[in-house]
Amino acid sequence: MYKNDVKYMSVALDEALKAFPEVYPNPKVGAVIVHDDKIISCGHTQDFGGKHAEVMAIENMPSTLKGCTLYVTLEPCTHKGKTDACIDLITPNIFKRVVIANLDPNPIAKGGVKKLIKDGIIVETGICSKNAKKINRRFFTFFEKKRPYIILKIASTLNGVIAEKDGNSEWITCQESRTSGHKARSCCDAIMVGRKTIEFDNPSLTSHGLGKNPRIIIIDPKNKLDHKANVFKSDPIVFSDILNSKKPIENVSIILKKLYDLSIQSLYVEGGGQTISYFIDANLYDELQIYYSPKMIGEGKPLYNGMKKLKDNLNLTLNKIEQFDNDIKVTYLKGY
Amino acid sequence: MYKNDVKYMSVALDEALKAFPEVYPNPKVGAVIVHDDKIISCGHTQDFGGKHAEVMAIENMPSTLKGCTLYVTLEPCTHKGKTDACIDLITPNIFKRVVIANLDPNPIAKGGVKKLIKDGIIVETGICSKNAKKINRRFFTFFEKKRPYIILKIASTLNGVIAEKDGNSEWITCQESRTSGHKARSCCDAIMVGRKTIEFDNPSLTSHGLGKNPRIIIIDPKNKLDHKANVFKSDPIVFSDILNSKKPIENVSIILKKLYDLSIQSLYVEGGGQTISYFIDANLYDELQIYYSPKMIGEGKPLYNGMKKLKDNLNLTLNKIEQFDNDIKVTYLKGY
Repeated sequence: MYKNDVKYMSVALDEALKAFPEVYPNPKVGAVIVHDDKIISCGHTQDFGGKHAEVMAIENMPSTLKGCTLYVTLEPCTHKGKTDACIDLITPNIFKRVVIANLDPNPIAKGGVKKLIKDGIIVETGICSKNAKKINRRFFTFFEKKRPYIILKIASTLNGVIAEKDGNSEWITCQESRTSGHKARSCCDAIMVGRKTIEFDNPSLTSHGLGKNPRIIIIDPKNKLDHKANVFKSDPIVFSDILNSKKPIENVSIILKKLYDLSIQSLYVEGGGQTISYFIDANLYDELQIYYSPKMIGEGKPLYNGMKKLKDNLNLTLNKIEQFDNDIKVTYLKGY
Repeated sequence: MYKNDVKYMSVALDEALKAFPEVYPNPKVGAVIVHDDKIISCGHTQDFGGKHAEVMAIENMPSTLKGCTLYVTLEPCTHKGKTDACIDLITPNIFKRVVIANLDPNPIAKGGVKKLIKDGIIVETGICSKNAKKINRRFFTFFEKKRPYIILKIASTLNGVIAEKDGNSEWITCQESRTSGHKARSCCDAIMVGRKTIEFDNPSLTSHGLGKNPRIIIIDPKNKLDHKANVFKSDPIVFSDILNSKKPIENVSIILKKLYDLSIQSLYVEGGGQTISYFIDANLYDELQIYYSPKMIGEGKPLYNGMKKLKDNLNLTLNKIEQFDNDIKVTYLKGY
């Protein structure tokens, strides 16, 4: 490791953060090209289907330079997808050294390091690895844990109630909170609800025009749902027969395995309380997004009715607090 | 009203905000003295028993000036308490005009305006009145509503649970949150809990050395408490016989009337859930301070189990969000 490697990789991390959520499901990557201890060029991933970070950086540098170092937050890809493989642009006549934060966990994209070494380029990996993973929690979770990155989304009164006794929840949170929720949907590959949420609310589960619509996933173990409900217009995936209705907590793993096979990288679980509780009790989630609205409901449906106790450490780190009119949104990250 | 009255009163309001919480139970007051359209001197209330705002401002001005205007956020007092009456310093040989945000609602302090007019000074009242009241919500609530200013304090899991089924709540919130709660106690005249909180937690209810200890108030309608509990070392006020055990919600008013008679200006209600619910259902509170800790308890005691429904507007305005380690504290003001 050279003395300025961390410094330049930190610049590359800042570059990565400039990428918009629209790069999903691609990771946000940053690249920095250094020559004679000076930054020559930078780049970050463009929207999905657009240019990758390394390509942006290489295209922005003078073409005659030699002996450069490339700092990139993820191993350059080796496959032609929507764009050409990045690795083909990283040639030994320009680069003598490539510094990489993390290897690519995606089996069809990895192998870049091997190719670089074969070409005689010096390769260093693992610089700022942890910080680089934080930027792409969804991407790394999907490939490393072989399941989607799971966001549990809850809209609650101040006393932890998500609906009245009869199921009515229109509306606990304010318009601004709901819009924030619709935006969050548009950044996820799929949205999941349990049967009762469909029956009580008959929601559309779209992003209400604020971006792409997530794929709809419904849990209906006993196949009870009336297929005239709104969501059935959007060709949802319904989990029924493969589920074990006697041990519902085990269904979480069954469903996640299937969603991984379908390449669903991020899952937004919108409830209700029963579905959320299964995920919490199974410890299978990565992020908790709770909206609290200044209301109280004495008798109602709880946001959680599972088995956790006071002594159980949920391993949650406070990540963000946002305000929407008089509501607040709290985001916790799990195992951070 | 002169064209710069609001401008100078706004400076006086900023002065008032400089007063520390230690002025309680006195109101935070700010004063500004203007001569020839220039600010000559400012002052704000000193700690309880110290000088009042007008005195500070008058002592800081050159003694030879004449024809000044005094801007003060509260009617100058007429009574000798821990300090001399302010009104005696506001003489016509210095002041030609006094502009006041609000009249003093305290019956033993009011009457200042009358005296000023009698002395031939021009008096204007009601400038920035609403903003001035916000600074002294406790003081105005006490005199205008003839009851203490009521803060409901709750320490909860993310799902609205304040203790396990058996009453154990050690500890839901983190050390930093609990310290914040102890500081809040020290700024209130009294702290209130119900019988069950004493039985489950056997708390001391002191400010743990972070300021003055509030007077302890206990609700024990059926006189069941064992007087060996820790709180009995601090000479608490116990409400028992005067309460109506059949209509507990009516007890809130009975208790508040008594606390007003005892000149308790601010009341910090620490629970448990039953006590908090009575106050919420009676709509008798001014501020809600909820600490949420990143825990979930499936079966436990709820922070609220009253009669409010989704349609009920609690009339709460989000005032402040604070972070304590991974806990958050949310403060709502009622009827703001």
